[in-house]
Amino acid sequence: MSSPRDCKICVGRWPWADHRIAEFGLSVAYLHEDQFFAGWTVLILKRHVTELYELAAQERGQLIEEVTAMAQALAAVFQPIKVNYAALGNQLPHMHWHVVPRLRDDPAPLEAIWGITHEPRRLSTEERQLRLAQIRRQLSTSV
Amino acid sequence: MSSPRDCKICVGRWPWADHRIAEFGLSVAYLHEDQFFAGWTVLILKRHVTELYELAAQERGQLIEEVTAMAQALAAVFQPIKVNYAALGNQLPHMHWHVVPRLRDDPAPLEAIWGITHEPRRLSTEERQLRLAQIRRQLSTSV
Repeated sequence: MSSPRDCKICVGRWPWADHRIAEFGLSVAYLHEDQFFAGWTVLILKRHVTELYELAAQERGQLIEEVTAMAQALAAVFQPIKVNYAALGNQLPHMHWHVVPRLRDDPAPLEAIWGITHEPRRLSTEERQLRLAQIRRQLSTSV
Repeated sequence: MSSPRDCKICVGRWPWADHRIAEFGLSVAYLHEDQFFAGWTVLILKRHVTELYELAAQERGQLIEEVTAMAQALAAVFQPIKVNYAALGNQLPHMHWHVVPRLRDDPAPLEAIWGITHEPRRLSTEERQLRLAQIRRQLSTSV
């Protein structure tokens, strides 16, 4: 397990605070700063753990429920063809889950987002606030 | 939800039967036919479901335990720097989990495997049987 001291997540450098969507019991959800894939969300585990097998079974059960609630809200807002779920951690081992709705206008719908070369898309403040509000509204009606 | 009738997994065309590692309660584990990333494993949900929110909470809890048992066995065998967990389904929506130990000699340890261009590595029958046996042995001692 890596150390929390040099962890970009633990020290609050990523994800970006103004992209925060909502807090769950074990995790906090943020809109990814690159919205090229509209709705790309990351769920950050509150405590510094790197692998699923370092969690208690009860925590894993709760965490997958939080990932699922997030996915369901994103699906309701974005009406994707498919949702992608991934905990990779190659660059940042602190456990975080990518939840990515893949929309109808996706430029490469068969590929994993990490294989698709693109210019990152930053939302304007107004666009971001609108998107955060949409997702939060959906979360509050479905959780 | 897509139809099981035209599903490559439901009709048994993928993953390859001779790559089968073990059966769990809700899923079956196979070695991926491309072993460029040594130990790359896929856990196939037995029934045709595409999204986490289509499962019952109890099933999600059990499934994440199966993913975790697989990851822990792979970690014991391959001693990875990090394990990657992903359920994408862009090409095959039938739920399957990639569990990928990322080893010390990984050519691009910071990248997702789907962004790393490489020649797929097929094992010889002998190599495959050895690898399957190694993983099964580990699973049987730890589950």
